[in-house]
Amino acid sequence: MNLDSLSLTDQRELAKSREISASDLAAACRQQIERFNPTLNAFITVLPPNSDEMPNSGSMPLYGIPIAVKDLYDTKGVRTTGGSKFFADYVPSEDAYVIQKIKKAGGQIVGKTNTHEIALGVTNNNPHFGACKNPWDITRTPGGSSGGSAVAVATGMSLAALGTDTGGSIRIPAALCGVVGLKPTFGRVSLRGILPLSWNLDHAGPITRKVEDAALMLQVMGGYDELDPTSVKTLPGDYSSHLKDTLKERKVALAVGKYIEEVSDPEILEAVYKAAKVLEEQGVIITELNVDFLWEAAQANALMTQADAAAFHRERLQEHPDWFGADVRQRLETGARFTSSEYVLARRTQTEVKRRCELLFEEYDVLLLPTVPIPAPVLEGENAIERARLLTRFTAPFNLTGLPALSVPCGFTKDELPIGLQIVSRAWNESGVLRAGFAYQQATEWHKMKPQIVQEAG
Amino acid sequence: MNLDSLSLTDQRELAKSREISASDLAAACRQQIERFNPTLNAFITVLPPNSDEMPNSGSMPLYGIPIAVKDLYDTKGVRTTGGSKFFADYVPSEDAYVIQKIKKAGGQIVGKTNTHEIALGVTNNNPHFGACKNPWDITRTPGGSSGGSAVAVATGMSLAALGTDTGGSIRIPAALCGVVGLKPTFGRVSLRGILPLSWNLDHAGPITRKVEDAALMLQVMGGYDELDPTSVKTLPGDYSSHLKDTLKERKVALAVGKYIEEVSDPEILEAVYKAAKVLEEQGVIITELNVDFLWEAAQANALMTQADAAAFHRERLQEHPDWFGADVRQRLETGARFTSSEYVLARRTQTEVKRRCELLFEEYDVLLLPTVPIPAPVLEGENAIERARLLTRFTAPFNLTGLPALSVPCGFTKDELPIGLQIVSRAWNESGVLRAGFAYQQATEWHKMKPQIVQEAG
Repeated sequence: MNLDSLSLTDQRELAKSREISASDLAAACRQQIERFNPTLNAFITVLPPNSDEMPNSGSMPLYGIPIAVKDLYDTKGVRTTGGSKFFADYVPSEDAYVIQKIKKAGGQIVGKTNTHEIALGVTNNNPHFGACKNPWDITRTPGGSSGGSAVAVATGMSLAALGTDTGGSIRIPAALCGVVGLKPTFGRVSLRGILPLSWNLDHAGPITRKVEDAALMLQVMGGYDELDPTSVKTLPGDYSSHLKDTLKERKVALAVGKYIEEVSDPEILEAVYKAAKVLEEQGVIITELNVDFLWEAAQANALMTQADAAAFHRERLQEHPDWFGADVRQRLETGARFTSSEYVLARRTQTEVKRRCELLFEEYDVLLLPTVPIPAPVLEGENAIERARLLTRFTAPFNLTGLPALSVPCGFTKDELPIGLQIVSRAWNESGVLRAGFAYQQATEWHKMKPQIVQEAG
Repeated sequence: MNLDSLSLTDQRELAKSREISASDLAAACRQQIERFNPTLNAFITVLPPNSDEMPNSGSMPLYGIPIAVKDLYDTKGVRTTGGSKFFADYVPSEDAYVIQKIKKAGGQIVGKTNTHEIALGVTNNNPHFGACKNPWDITRTPGGSSGGSAVAVATGMSLAALGTDTGGSIRIPAALCGVVGLKPTFGRVSLRGILPLSWNLDHAGPITRKVEDAALMLQVMGGYDELDPTSVKTLPGDYSSHLKDTLKERKVALAVGKYIEEVSDPEILEAVYKAAKVLEEQGVIITELNVDFLWEAAQANALMTQADAAAFHRERLQEHPDWFGADVRQRLETGARFTSSEYVLARRTQTEVKRRCELLFEEYDVLLLPTVPIPAPVLEGENAIERARLLTRFTAPFNLTGLPALSVPCGFTKDELPIGLQIVSRAWNESGVLRAGFAYQQATEWHKMKPQIVQEAG
């Protein structure tokens, strides 16, 4: 059986029905890790397979599913580096709250994935643990900061992965690696036991091959945690039951205007516009909407991220500035120089843009826009840094506002690099973005495409 | 008829039933203004009586009621100084949203009340418009920043008043002047058209003679305003219907510990403990609770207030620093010097203390503590500034957390200065604090006491 062509959800059904065992799944993923990790460097730490075959329980929603975990999540007894020299030998004594949930649900942690150092950057060019490579073109970045997690899923090294997203760090690598990434609503998933980048903008969420898998992962990951002060008590979500509901008559906004168009590659825009057409054919009502106000939101998110990170890492920056990579150190130093007034104005922008988006989503069910304006930039070379700066442009506004946002594959450039469609909605409407993403996925084939490196390995 | 002994709610009934006319009410308040304002300086601007007798409509909840408005609320065609030289000639072209609501409800604006300059201070010793005096002892501060509003209500110059509260500016003057002050939940009352002090900590609310009047005022003032991005959409509150509900078996926490006890005057503590006994006699279950964690909240609130104010007033501070009074200027300059890291840590404290209070109010219905640890300090003289610094100690934590908090009169010092009992609850439970405050009021006589200056005028 070719496990590789199956989604997490498919495999879960097989595992539950004993057609494949948890150890078969683990072995299949391990084979992919052995094949590709030396080239792609997706993992900082690979874990040995769990020697105990776990009890097959139908009540475990992730029974036996191999899951890769960004190396920002505390894992009991397993070092958790945060991609940083400071934490290179840190072995947590407790699992992060979400890891506890994943384990209780039957998930098997296959390893800890590569990340941009302390998650403060989106290229995953890590000076301490090496650059992570894009499986579609190993001269290019997989995006970050959750790059290793996206690469693991894109190459079958795991069936799902955990990422974190402060300015796009789940959605960007998902888009650049041709997989699905979901940033839930701020407050939906506990951040306890995850290395903070920003106390106000961090989001934990899943990276998967298919939309239904992201729904399943969120079902496990989500929920109130009184020990995380940002966690919000809400009605428990049900993300899977309504995936197949019709989109007929739903109002969908398609983002247009200078902010979207002036830097986006034409083939990216074309793919996103075509995606809107695909949804239109399913009965949604598409309206073009100028979203130039997102500029201010992206600026505020960048300032707040750097300032929040500088505050959290203040002692490390003071004591061992040289332990940080050059790019991260520079961002932290910039963050530390912001005055409180600059921060306060960014915070006010946050309040205002949140309201603006609230009003927008009273009118529209979801908003469509590119996840990133360009395909994966090269890791090294001319313009590499400048191009990388564009990556957060369309994702960061939804960290500032805390709104749920999904990236799904929606095409390829002429160079065969994946393109991501971003679907955003009002707070707590993960079901809405997943439903729209699922409808799009079911009408297209992009999610079935595999990087050549994987195809060649057969 | 002695209007002076009647609450707003009583007078409304009389006005509705035509036993007294709106112009009788206005004349009675005007007489008090003429009597006392030259001494107490409660008003920056006194408005001429409304010459049109308004239509007597039973549907107007504030029909004919004279209301004093802190000079931070925009009033159409009437200068709105903010107690500041910068706005000394500012005449708004629109009413603040809450003023629109008050007018639609039939309220008559009698004048604009004195305030600490730009509301950044709690003594109301205004360098541009003169100090406001405490009617219980004119050598003492009425508290601030909404000092003029509390004085107006305490002396019958108006039947209710509007204040704003960023660190205690409604509750402190209410306590020091022997009246009722309510700071609603953050987001309950629109701030649109009110001069900001802090975009994150400002609250608009009423000052009244009795608890039932505060309930009525909040009924008019509260409600979602999509044009204020901090306004929150909630179910409409009903603050009056449950005022008389029994408190039996309700769990009430009485604040104790070093933070409460080390600076409070013994006679203040005694009055608050006695107030708890009064509620105990009505069947509530009192538990002593250490609240030393409020220290950190008060510190964070002070930092955030100064930083937020410095950001909002940055151009004025740069261009005309000398137009600010010495104390306000110093606070703004301190605020401008805070780094973003200091601000970020205060913001994190805000998040954490909010959660801590959420958990506290899962266990208790309300928390009782002194509104201020000391009686009204003298306006001038030794220790005046040092004593004034203590005033926000018990109120500021509930600006940081945004929780509803009511101050009701609960006794007098041996020098015949009023003491305030503060009643706090979970977010959106204004009904709960009002109910507890009403039960206490009905069992005591403190709210009926009048300053000697008023008694003498007969």
